[in-house]
Amino acid sequence: MPHDTSPLHIAQSLLRCPSVTPAEGGALTFIEGVLREAGFEVHRPVFSEAGTPDVENLYARYGKTEPYLLFAGHTDVVPPGDINRWRHDPFSGAIEEGELFGRGAVDMKGGVACMMAAAIEFIRANPDFKGSIGFLITGDEEGPAINGSVKLLDWARARGERFDHCILGEPTNPNQLGDMIKIGRRGSLTGKLVVEGKQGHVAYPHLADNPIPGMLRLLNGLLREPLDRGTAHFDASNLEVTTVDVGNPASNVIPADARATFNIRFNDLWTPQSLEEEIARRLREAAGNTVRYTLTVEPTNAVAFITEPNAFVGFIADAIEAETGIRPKLSTTGGTSDARFIVRDCPVVEFGLVGQTMHQIDERVPVADLDRLATIYGKVLDAYFAVSA
Amino acid sequence: MPHDTSPLHIAQSLLRCPSVTPAEGGALTFIEGVLREAGFEVHRPVFSEAGTPDVENLYARYGKTEPYLLFAGHTDVVPPGDINRWRHDPFSGAIEEGELFGRGAVDMKGGVACMMAAAIEFIRANPDFKGSIGFLITGDEEGPAINGSVKLLDWARARGERFDHCILGEPTNPNQLGDMIKIGRRGSLTGKLVVEGKQGHVAYPHLADNPIPGMLRLLNGLLREPLDRGTAHFDASNLEVTTVDVGNPASNVIPADARATFNIRFNDLWTPQSLEEEIARRLREAAGNTVRYTLTVEPTNAVAFITEPNAFVGFIADAIEAETGIRPKLSTTGGTSDARFIVRDCPVVEFGLVGQTMHQIDERVPVADLDRLATIYGKVLDAYFAVSA
Repeated sequence: MPHDTSPLHIAQSLLRCPSVTPAEGGALTFIEGVLREAGFEVHRPVFSEAGTPDVENLYARYGKTEPYLLFAGHTDVVPPGDINRWRHDPFSGAIEEGELFGRGAVDMKGGVACMMAAAIEFIRANPDFKGSIGFLITGDEEGPAINGSVKLLDWARARGERFDHCILGEPTNPNQLGDMIKIGRRGSLTGKLVVEGKQGHVAYPHLADNPIPGMLRLLNGLLREPLDRGTAHFDASNLEVTTVDVGNPASNVIPADARATFNIRFNDLWTPQSLEEEIARRLREAAGNTVRYTLTVEPTNAVAFITEPNAFVGFIADAIEAETGIRPKLSTTGGTSDARFIVRDCPVVEFGLVGQTMHQIDERVPVADLDRLATIYGKVLDAYFAVSA
Repeated sequence: MPHDTSPLHIAQSLLRCPSVTPAEGGALTFIEGVLREAGFEVHRPVFSEAGTPDVENLYARYGKTEPYLLFAGHTDVVPPGDINRWRHDPFSGAIEEGELFGRGAVDMKGGVACMMAAAIEFIRANPDFKGSIGFLITGDEEGPAINGSVKLLDWARARGERFDHCILGEPTNPNQLGDMIKIGRRGSLTGKLVVEGKQGHVAYPHLADNPIPGMLRLLNGLLREPLDRGTAHFDASNLEVTTVDVGNPASNVIPADARATFNIRFNDLWTPQSLEEEIARRLREAAGNTVRYTLTVEPTNAVAFITEPNAFVGFIADAIEAETGIRPKLSTTGGTSDARFIVRDCPVVEFGLVGQTMHQIDERVPVADLDRLATIYGKVLDAYFAVSA
């Protein structure tokens, strides 16, 4: 008997797979079966790296011609937390009052299910369309993200795969389906500061060197001026000092050193390199000749990127408006996503379910949203391949 | 057989008493025996307070008339640390190459021994001198200082005791005997700051409220202007921020609150009350309407005090110069001491041994320094009672 390829059935089947990163949990095997049945060529590369667990991934393609539209997503999920606080077993796929419960319901097994349902439906209706539809599904998005999308894209590129456009199905809507498309993301850079002083007794400050005033100078220097005022599609870059720690329990002791960490979410005016130079410049200026410090910038692959509004973005916005009556906002807000890796290969736009319950107890999605999102993806496929035909 | 009342013998006997706070260790009993034999009336009040160990103390007086010169000190010592790292058992009173080793050798069983030797010698030579000599010896100076000098002074005052002058035998000399007399001490005030923010994700700063910039504003406000420029006998008051702690391990999270502690060593321009008002004023000004914070000032009895140079200070300086050839510096530097309590009853000056090894492994004193300090105290007694007679 062939698979039931309704969005609800696929989503429910995926939610029943306990695929907490890095476990596959049966999720990719289920997807493989469904896509093979629909005529996809399916690959299941496993990636390894010393010090990290091996991770299973999936790549599937239907069609051999251009244009090539790629759906991207992940089946791994964050841990459910205290299972007793859930209304339903987070891996049971329970439905209550029109809502499907489970870890990954919106982030993003639900989104993956809608992509699959839409693609299979489109292929059934247009078996001989000109072009290709692909799936790039990783099992390492919520974890260290080392054996996931980056290596899967490298692997695909090495096979000669060339994508024209990509839709990443992360939950992009803050409040209701149709609110928001993400056409880019800010980059992220984390730096750590250590100011060295000399320990001593507070009654003899001339024999010590308190590192805290120096740390204040450096942090004041970092925060004094905004990094920029934003760009056409991006908010202003933002620096947050996330911690300052000295850890000195004795109020009669001047401490030996002080530590701080900051994180910057930056827009398309900056690269990690240009931003690091600006940070180093501000620190040098604040330190003068008196503050001894070290700056360590963590290596980052979270660059800022943008997919400028164009016909592709237009197809998606039109499909959303046709189904929901809402003209979606084109946004670059929020955290980072795997889109930052995919954008090296092709333009990528993110659109999925409503994110409100993601990573929380009782993560859930209205069944109606699954149907509507599948319909939206279907309309995008219709428009994309009709225009390109 | 009467006691050997040489400074060395008394010091050695005291060092053999394991009187780590709050243990009496036999030290006060030894002193009682020696002073009774010399004609002193001796009391051994024990003080208690809920939540603290009972502590034994000693008060002794020779003579019934004025003027009354009081010697003050303590026989409790800080713990010896790792005994294996000592060259000699810290409670054995060992002598090596002219130095007497032991916990308390300079802080301050050695000083107590010299006071006792000098007083007994003076009384032996001048049995009918006009005036009184007293000893106020506490067993709770290195500990919480709750059941020590404060209660002992209250107890003596309640008995009708009135002191004219006091010498406290703390180790005041930085490098060699005769360097430094302390004629006052700065006060100490500790305050704690908490800035309240709102936790959130760094990618959504508008939904959070980072407490760290507010903490920087408050600390900048505290440090911007010196508290004062010093006075005739005091250095400028000094504020040290001793710790800043947020304790946020996640560089993608804006923390909920930030904490800091500061300590001020202040001179005779300030009382704890006036200083607290100044701190509160600086914080209000720095906070404006935007920083939500709480300031907690720890209760303090460490006020600043000064014994203005006068005839009494002159006797001591002259005696030091006569014995050592050094004109001592009149200083108010360093930490706090029990002198801050005694000064409520009479002028107090501090002079004792060389402090270099105090609180350290291998605390020790040259035997020659004991003899010279006893000689100095003896010359002070000669001058004090000769002038007053």
